[in-house]
Amino acid sequence: MLTIGLLGAGRIGQVHARAIASNANSRLAAISDVHAPAAEALAATCGAEVRSSEQIIADPAIDAVLIATPTDTHSPLIEAATAAGKAVLCEKPVDLSLDRALACKAAADSTGRPVMVGFNRRFDPSFAAAKAAFDAGEIGKGELLSITSFDPAPPPLAYIGVSGGLFRDMAIHDFDMASWIMGGVPETVTATASSLVDPAIGEAGDVDTAVIVLRYADGRICVIRNSRRAAYGYDQRLEYLGSEGMLSVENVLENTVRKSTGTGVESAKPEFFFLQRYMRAYEIEWAAFVAAVEGGTPMPATLQDGINALAIAEAATLSAKTGTPVAVTPEMLGQG
Amino acid sequence: MLTIGLLGAGRIGQVHARAIASNANSRLAAISDVHAPAAEALAATCGAEVRSSEQIIADPAIDAVLIATPTDTHSPLIEAATAAGKAVLCEKPVDLSLDRALACKAAADSTGRPVMVGFNRRFDPSFAAAKAAFDAGEIGKGELLSITSFDPAPPPLAYIGVSGGLFRDMAIHDFDMASWIMGGVPETVTATASSLVDPAIGEAGDVDTAVIVLRYADGRICVIRNSRRAAYGYDQRLEYLGSEGMLSVENVLENTVRKSTGTGVESAKPEFFFLQRYMRAYEIEWAAFVAAVEGGTPMPATLQDGINALAIAEAATLSAKTGTPVAVTPEMLGQG
Amino acid sequence: MLTIGLLGAGRIGQVHARAIASNANSRLAAISDVHAPAAEALAATCGAEVRSSEQIIADPAIDAVLIATPTDTHSPLIEAATAAGKAVLCEKPVDLSLDRALACKAAADSTGRPVMVGFNRRFDPSFAAAKAAFDAGEIGKGELLSITSFDPAPPPLAYIGVSGGLFRDMAIHDFDMASWIMGGVPETVTATASSLVDPAIGEAGDVDTAVIVLRYADGRICVIRNSRRAAYGYDQRLEYLGSEGMLSVENVLENTVRKSTGTGVESAKPEFFFLQRYMRAYEIEWAAFVAAVEGGTPMPATLQDGINALAIAEAATLSAKTGTPVAVTPEMLGQG
Amino acid sequence: MLTIGLLGAGRIGQVHARAIASNANSRLAAISDVHAPAAEALAATCGAEVRSSEQIIADPAIDAVLIATPTDTHSPLIEAATAAGKAVLCEKPVDLSLDRALACKAAADSTGRPVMVGFNRRFDPSFAAAKAAFDAGEIGKGELLSITSFDPAPPPLAYIGVSGGLFRDMAIHDFDMASWIMGGVPETVTATASSLVDPAIGEAGDVDTAVIVLRYADGRICVIRNSRRAAYGYDQRLEYLGSEGMLSVENVLENTVRKSTGTGVESAKPEFFFLQRYMRAYEIEWAAFVAAVEGGTPMPATLQDGINALAIAEAATLSAKTGTPVAVTPEMLGQG
Repeated sequence: MLTIGLLGAGRIGQVHARAIASNANSRLAAISDVHAPAAEALAATCGAEVRSSEQIIADPAIDAVLIATPTDTHSPLIEAATAAGKAVLCEKPVDLSLDRALACKAAADSTGRPVMVGFNRRFDPSFAAAKAAFDAGEIGKGELLSITSFDPAPPPLAYIGVSGGLFRDMAIHDFDMASWIMGGVPETVTATASSLVDPAIGEAGDVDTAVIVLRYADGRICVIRNSRRAAYGYDQRLEYLGSEGMLSVENVLENTVRKSTGTGVESAKPEFFFLQRYMRAYEIEWAAFVAAVEGGTPMPATLQDGINALAIAEAATLSAKTGTPVAVTPEMLGQG
Repeated sequence: MLTIGLLGAGRIGQVHARAIASNANSRLAAISDVHAPAAEALAATCGAEVRSSEQIIADPAIDAVLIATPTDTHSPLIEAATAAGKAVLCEKPVDLSLDRALACKAAADSTGRPVMVGFNRRFDPSFAAAKAAFDAGEIGKGELLSITSFDPAPPPLAYIGVSGGLFRDMAIHDFDMASWIMGGVPETVTATASSLVDPAIGEAGDVDTAVIVLRYADGRICVIRNSRRAAYGYDQRLEYLGSEGMLSVENVLENTVRKSTGTGVESAKPEFFFLQRYMRAYEIEWAAFVAAVEGGTPMPATLQDGINALAIAEAATLSAKTGTPVAVTPEMLGQG
Repeated sequence: MLTIGLLGAGRIGQVHARAIASNANSRLAAISDVHAPAAEALAATCGAEVRSSEQIIADPAIDAVLIATPTDTHSPLIEAATAAGKAVLCEKPVDLSLDRALACKAAADSTGRPVMVGFNRRFDPSFAAAKAAFDAGEIGKGELLSITSFDPAPPPLAYIGVSGGLFRDMAIHDFDMASWIMGGVPETVTATASSLVDPAIGEAGDVDTAVIVLRYADGRICVIRNSRRAAYGYDQRLEYLGSEGMLSVENVLENTVRKSTGTGVESAKPEFFFLQRYMRAYEIEWAAFVAAVEGGTPMPATLQDGINALAIAEAATLSAKTGTPVAVTPEMLGQG
Repeated sequence: MLTIGLLGAGRIGQVHARAIASNANSRLAAISDVHAPAAEALAATCGAEVRSSEQIIADPAIDAVLIATPTDTHSPLIEAATAAGKAVLCEKPVDLSLDRALACKAAADSTGRPVMVGFNRRFDPSFAAAKAAFDAGEIGKGELLSITSFDPAPPPLAYIGVSGGLFRDMAIHDFDMASWIMGGVPETVTATASSLVDPAIGEAGDVDTAVIVLRYADGRICVIRNSRRAAYGYDQRLEYLGSEGMLSVENVLENTVRKSTGTGVESAKPEFFFLQRYMRAYEIEWAAFVAAVEGGTPMPATLQDGINALAIAEAATLSAKTGTPVAVTPEMLGQG
């Protein structure tokens, strides 16, 4: 039984609190948040205490911390928590700065404590089943991976400004999905992007619609499609074409009702929001973290995975500006 | 190469004319219709001659006749054509009277000429693939067959009066489908029926909505659902539950477009009309007839099949009135 | 906040315990089970006490009891709990004996306490959405309802013997679904049934495959298909044909992966077991019970609903033996 | 009624012969092929004469010619036929050389005779319905178009050498689809391509797997995925994301059978070959040509459309080599 401290009681912190509670091998003991009422409200429903992040990290009774705070605090909190001997599960991205993330990894590595990065989609039952089928050779040799990732609606403009941009904030999940399925990082990244959804996003220096092409050393190709808006809901799909067939992951629909009338056949939309779509993934992610900590086995998504995704995001950001392919170098991956 | 005479130039006659033309082993030589302009118009597009049915049947150059005339002429034309040595493909039903159909069969049998009944659905690529999969043992032992057959809209009231009623006119296809897949006729038939679509149909003594349950000697069950109206189009489906799984045949849709918006995901309707849905089936049916005549092999749908379907229709008609199960006796099948 | 006592710690009791825990307005205080270790194991994970059913019912601090014990204890426990002033949610069926159920209802009614019967499928998001769409007039006037309900595998033979038979044990859910959607009970019930799945079920006097046709006073028809075995999983579907279209509820699949290869396109099976398929329904059911108790509003599934389903089951059982339609009389519904 | 000469009796010529025969307003009078037996065999089934291309073009009784010969003869035959006053439907591509195609267009334009290029996919009922829905504003403003086009298997290596390469031979259809739906040509083309399917294709200087990104002046993006091999059949799909939703076109399946067993749910594959998938499109294409010639209305796919697609192919071929975006200039489109 692991005793857990949760740093951050916002939307995603609440999701994690539920996952911790649903797991028979973990107990949520303490919650911190810079906004005290948020911590108090969540603590009340969980039977946990409210403390500061510092208190939680300093408490020897806490086995592991889950970091669900704003991105700019991730690196220092990972460093502090691992230095204090905690196991850590940190939300993505590790940092908006690749250099800072590399420094964080060096510091955490020196403590020997395990750190997992919250790439929740790896734990979605459908994505996981597709990956397992591919690894079992069910479509032969992989050739062309396609990832679709459209949000239902853009975030508030204020968030756009601090998000690090579409590639670091939103596509980062897709870059990890690509690395996870392809089994490594690409040689080059070519991004084509526009601001089509909302001109204000473009004025803020970001894009909202993008196609990113990753090319691997062995010639395999991955294409990622991103949009900040899909009127019909959260669109999260994947196709992997191989020498003997194709694996696809379709959306999860809100229900299974179908209405047939003189004007057509109408079905439900995809689940509108990531919390509905990935609720089960967050529970499985947490169970995987608990099992790895308790079993002393490797984390199923490491700090290096976080850095890999960030390096691809950096390359994509540059490519979208220059229009040319950008290499992902060993230096960017901390392996120079 | 078979030389063909077509009796009847109405809607279904035109469908058959196209099938005859598309077949490299048959040539449409002559067309008859009591309504001369219909015969002339069709003949013009086919390069065929207009003659009377009697002339066609008497012509020694004609190898086979296709009977697509009104139902009450089927039996006498089958008898005349076989007596004249023709092979015959006759539209369903053989007759509205089971006794008359039995007499027709006796007469035709005595000539030794082959007669096929136009149960076109046996030749639909999807129904045929499902039947083949079942016969290959892909779902183990059969247990429960379900047939859905809804027309897009009821026929004109005038037709209802001469149709023989829903069971003989519309469900007859489903009775044949059941016999074809189940490999024989049921012991008992229980029909529950109402007039819900149009009160005028009820006033005309017919029903428009029915559920018919067939029970076989070995305990297997078949349930047929019929309606004269489905606002979304022609609904033609099948499910066969077996000991090791289920085979289903879904509808054919008008196109493969899908529109996802904030209100749902909209697909196309099923093909609205039987001519679109079964166009390919009519071509394959005709090719099967030609091949059987030329090869001297058994007809893929015989007069006995027509009688079997008619006997079930008779039992269903009675059951719908009495509310009790009605047996299908050997006498009804001409095997008493 | 309602304080709850749970009677029965078996499989379904455990499902309910989780639903009670997930609800912010209910607290599980005590659990009973004739098999003490079961009660203790469940109580340990819930922070509840183990007591006897009598103690729970006698405790004035308990607001409501959830009855998840064997069927033959349902009626006496409903009577005792309502007499003690509790609100009650009781698993289906109320009783295997219609007379006993009617007596139970009379007793419970005299206390004025609310009793809900656990027809969980009413709370499945897809079935509920279909019912709401129908009630909103989206397919016009209802005509033909079809319910498919196949279990993945038959229960142990020992259970068959005490189950009350397929109609009272399994189809009871479908009878309630029919009454719920059709807005009342049918005039007549006609059942056709066989033992095809396992001869031992037939030797035990039960059937395992059935088609039940319900006919309503206004001519509408409902057809229910039941099997104790579907090799591909729990098959739970519905179609309602109306004057302006059709509403269907499809199965929920295990995941959304699709594999396309040279041999075909393969998708996941339906959720195999009722706990997976209806997990969410049990939570919503419990929330509906809590809301109705706290708000003093009518129960969303009443003892009368339980009796209606039982009366249809009784008629179906008789019809399957006699082969003829059996009427559902006012006397059977306790309204004679 | 148009009298037609068909140049080329190979596979695609045979498809067109059938379309011509099925059209009530056209009559196939003459067929040419450098391989005489091919012309004779086809002519025999059509009741047409065998002649040389020169004879056909010189015959004043011929109203229109359909050019279905090898690509390197397209330009001279278009020029000769239009100079002789014929209307022309020519298979794609116009030429492998953009310069030659531009010269051909200038020559044909000077005759004033109408020339249509055979972009058959514009006439596929599903693609046409999606385009119509978009043009009707059903998904708002267009943002991101995705085209999937995978062949079932690569062509013979000998053909690869003379094909002009994947972009001119295979992607040309997708480039036209993009121009047709987007309403114009892109500013830049970025292609990423590999030889993964068969190393011999790479050794022959071609690629077999490609992702092509088109960027339009208004920021809209189109991404095209190509592979020479999909083990499950011919994969032809489209998705267009707009401000208010998405339109998708799915594959057409071989049949509508579904088999559910303990190992999963299996459906049919997509139609394996382009002739099955686009059979109906070829008939509609021909009808559109005949209607435009008879009505004197604009061709629904012009020589300029053929040049636009060729210019994009040229840019893609260059981009795949250099790795950088390549502009599509007015000069390339003959509009410099």
